[in-house]
Amino acid sequence: MRIGIVGLGLIGGSLGIDFSQQGYQVVGIGRRPEVCQAALERNVVQQAGCDYSLLSGVDAVFVCTPIAAIAATVGAIAPYLAPHAVVTDVGSVKAAIVTAATHHWPRFVGGHPMAGKTEVGLEAAEPGLYRDRAYVLTPLAQTPADAVETVAALVKELRARLYQCSPEIHDRAVAWISHLPVMVSSSLIQACLSEPNAEVAQLARALASSGFQDTSRVGGGPPELGLMMARYNRDSILQSLQGYRHQLDQVIALIQAEDWEGVQQHLRQTQAARSEFIA
Amino acid sequence: MRIGIVGLGLIGGSLGIDFSQQGYQVVGIGRRPEVCQAALERNVVQQAGCDYSLLSGVDAVFVCTPIAAIAATVGAIAPYLAPHAVVTDVGSVKAAIVTAATHHWPRFVGGHPMAGKTEVGLEAAEPGLYRDRAYVLTPLAQTPADAVETVAALVKELRARLYQCSPEIHDRAVAWISHLPVMVSSSLIQACLSEPNAEVAQLARALASSGFQDTSRVGGGPPELGLMMARYNRDSILQSLQGYRHQLDQVIALIQAEDWEGVQQHLRQTQAARSEFIA
Repeated sequence: MRIGIVGLGLIGGSLGIDFSQQGYQVVGIGRRPEVCQAALERNVVQQAGCDYSLLSGVDAVFVCTPIAAIAATVGAIAPYLAPHAVVTDVGSVKAAIVTAATHHWPRFVGGHPMAGKTEVGLEAAEPGLYRDRAYVLTPLAQTPADAVETVAALVKELRARLYQCSPEIHDRAVAWISHLPVMVSSSLIQACLSEPNAEVAQLARALASSGFQDTSRVGGGPPELGLMMARYNRDSILQSLQGYRHQLDQVIALIQAEDWEGVQQHLRQTQAARSEFIA
Repeated sequence: MRIGIVGLGLIGGSLGIDFSQQGYQVVGIGRRPEVCQAALERNVVQQAGCDYSLLSGVDAVFVCTPIAAIAATVGAIAPYLAPHAVVTDVGSVKAAIVTAATHHWPRFVGGHPMAGKTEVGLEAAEPGLYRDRAYVLTPLAQTPADAVETVAALVKELRARLYQCSPEIHDRAVAWISHLPVMVSSSLIQACLSEPNAEVAQLARALASSGFQDTSRVGGGPPELGLMMARYNRDSILQSLQGYRHQLDQVIALIQAEDWEGVQQHLRQTQAARSEFIA
């Protein structure tokens, strides 16, 4: 089986490393010749270039471009693909992508590996990035079952934890645990910048330690990532933000009313509930 | 110089270890005889017991009890202290404590070491816990200067970064970077629990990874700690929560209006600003 990877960054490069090590023939498509060259030298892929025609012989393609380019890339590679080829992507939102990509290529299966790290680019690619991590597939009702099976089998080769659901269910779930935290966290940083008293503002910066550091981490991440989440998952993130705001208002009301029993109950619940989310 | 420590948990125990290693005579007061015994065996203190009369010969006392007990403890030990003795505490809020404690003992100097870890109790005590961490002293206008100097000199022995300000400035600063994050983070957990669709709720739990983990950490911490913050720093935390809510509303408005330029600008600002808070 031959596998194509379009986009040789952290995600695409790490897929290439794992599939190459398992004996698959991997063809990489990069935008820049020097990245293709580096991918060949590191044995991330066995063949590489900037030209989509290299994909003519592959059985499965992983589109690993930024979210905004995924659907258009599927459209651009479609003329070169063999009829039986399956195409999948790695975008962190699904509904907005899957409909458009399926239009270009009916044997498209939306995918989202929940893996990443702070560093980006091919240099950061590593073996086993997806091992024991969640990997969600989001077929539509009309997606051919054998196309889903082909992608699922490849995901299992990565030793990832495989999940399957509709694009809409996926987008609502990640809105809660991935996209909402970015907005919650960035609003924390922004709010701290609003302190008008210079002595307080300066001391706050000096005293910030692990609690602030952890809570602000994803809000201080790459702006492009947060923007894509908001833009391509707008409805779900707005729904989560409204739910969050409602919850925040309840906490404010409890403290305002000096309902300490209520505050304690809230914090007991969140302490107990967090473990449900942390494997 | 002889030092007394009331409360032999993580904070008091770690102070005892550092001061003992530097050759100070340290007297520990614990509520339970077995903790006193353990403190003696681990060389955390050189003398220990449950009786406040052991403090009659000390020059400085660190009150390391939970916040709710600090002022009352200062009142309870006052009859046993030598007139020149200084008393300080380690509570994470200051205004509510300092006024009451100073009433009991005029040579009281409010203090707050910004150090901690997840584990609690004497078993978790360790040397160097305060090294390179912020340690804030919050004297009042009427606090004797030599009392402040005595505590400041001891804090410097811990190799901590020493700060000094009024109790009110301290409480406003920690409301932003320590207390607000707890409420922001716990509200995130609570909001995620509100999802009515069982499939979405279950998938969210399965997919939660490092972003959710970090953002929810302090909101899943000990309920007693968050409750004390809210209770004893009510006005400052409410002020910070209102500022935060205002900021959150602006983010919601930007996404609702599909003002992607505005969302990107917000995220660029928070990415750049975070480094001001992270040493």
